[in-house]
Amino acid sequence: MTEIADRFSKEVHTCMEALARCHTTCLSMAMTHCFELGGEHARPQHIRLMLDCATLCAATLDLLAHKSQFHNRVCALCADICDVCAADCRRLGQMEECVEACRHCAACCRDVARLDHAAILAMGSMVPPTH
Amino acid sequence: MTEIADRFSKEVHTCMEALARCHTTCLSMAMTHCFELGGEHARPQHIRLMLDCATLCAATLDLLAHKSQFHNRVCALCADICDVCAADCRRLGQMEECVEACRHCAACCRDVARLDHAAILAMGSMVPPTH
Amino acid sequence: MTEIADRFSKEVHTCMEALARCHTTCLSMAMTHCFELGGEHARPQHIRLMLDCATLCAATLDLLAHKSQFHNRVCALCADICDVCAADCRRLGQMEECVEACRHCAACCRDVARLDHAAILAMGSMVPPTH
Amino acid sequence: MTEIADRFSKEVHTCMEALARCHTTCLSMAMTHCFELGGEHARPQHIRLMLDCATLCAATLDLLAHKSQFHNRVCALCADICDVCAADCRRLGQMEECVEACRHCAACCRDVARLDHAAILAMGSMVPPTH
Repeated sequence: MTEIADRFSKEVHTCMEALARCHTTCLSMAMTHCFELGGEHARPQHIRLMLDCATLCAATLDLLAHKSQFHNRVCALCADICDVCAADCRRLGQMEECVEACRHCAACCRDVARLDHAAILAMGSMVPPTH
Repeated sequence: MTEIADRFSKEVHTCMEALARCHTTCLSMAMTHCFELGGEHARPQHIRLMLDCATLCAATLDLLAHKSQFHNRVCALCADICDVCAADCRRLGQMEECVEACRHCAACCRDVARLDHAAILAMGSMVPPTH
Repeated sequence: MTEIADRFSKEVHTCMEALARCHTTCLSMAMTHCFELGGEHARPQHIRLMLDCATLCAATLDLLAHKSQFHNRVCALCADICDVCAADCRRLGQMEECVEACRHCAACCRDVARLDHAAILAMGSMVPPTH
Repeated sequence: MTEIADRFSKEVHTCMEALARCHTTCLSMAMTHCFELGGEHARPQHIRLMLDCATLCAATLDLLAHKSQFHNRVCALCADICDVCAADCRRLGQMEECVEACRHCAACCRDVARLDHAAILAMGSMVPPTH
């Protein structure tokens, strides 16, 4: 791989990890932490937003794993949902892990949304690298 | 419910049924019919497109079931993916059920994409009506 | 198709419809109806059970659409989760649609769990029939 | 947290990471690597098995994130599917990452399947730890 292909490939893998983390964090915090705190944290509008974010992150991850030709639009949409979720979690407080996971995921999705499909098809594989 | 709310509610339910049908049709035909036909039908680009469509339909259905505030953009994206999938299936031939499921789903998603979130929140429930 | 293959095929299609319906009903009622009622309906243990049921129904549907060799065990597990969800919804009251969707789905999953994989592979297609 | 609760908590987090990794590896290799190799790697039975494994890993991860009361059975089933997938990938060759991801995931799922639900409910949170 050329140096630039290698950089792109790292961007996609970093994004896929961020999506997996954001999916798990949103789903898990919504169904445990937010319910336990109650009050504003357990209001339907907040829980739905957390599940929207979890759902879109999972779908976006699957499309990247497929090398989907729609990665640009789905990544851009996912980034916007992550931003809204981060802002709502920030406003409520006691949601630091979720704010951080959503913001990092939004930034990664915006990076990948800029790549063109040919660059993604040229990458070796979408299999997660071993740490 | 007013008459107009009732009409909107029917549009959303029809869309949710179309999304479920399109998801199952794409996944099922990709993994059985297309593989059995082989040749062009079993090429990666086609199978990925079928899975993209199946994945986005499932995510869109879940967001509608949540009364998500992002229904407009996710429905609009889903409609475009369904159109591309329908066109590719039409080009290949022997994919009539998929062409039909994708086209119907695209049309329903465009209808729902036009509704505003307040209209969706005002609807009684997203539970599928009994036939 | 022989008469018996035709009957099996109808069982699988009926099950796939029941799974789609149960998935949407559980997810939708958990995120709208149960939250709006509040109290016992909005307690974490109940909401988690509804999401467990929604998640397993979607996974089981996807495995049937693939003609998975694991359909027996996943259908048997899904039937048990549907039963537990139906019982909890019945206990709480005001959850008739969910009780009915879960019970019907459990019964269908038990029928399909009894089929052997050869019977499923012999079926024409898992594409939903038009009504 | 007591020392034993802390050890259980690490087991669940390790399992959730292994499930995310196995899901992405199976889906990604099925849709890119296996198709590119063609021949036995691209046969329906193999591709379906890879998708079965990817689907069940995602569902199991979501149930763990919910602190589901069904974690024992879903983890046990997931472990068995991972084993079958690992064996098939090993037989075909050129699938080392998938063999490794499936085996590790199977072992982690068996560990978690032994925990009881009370232990899982007592854990602080299912949010992924930062590295």
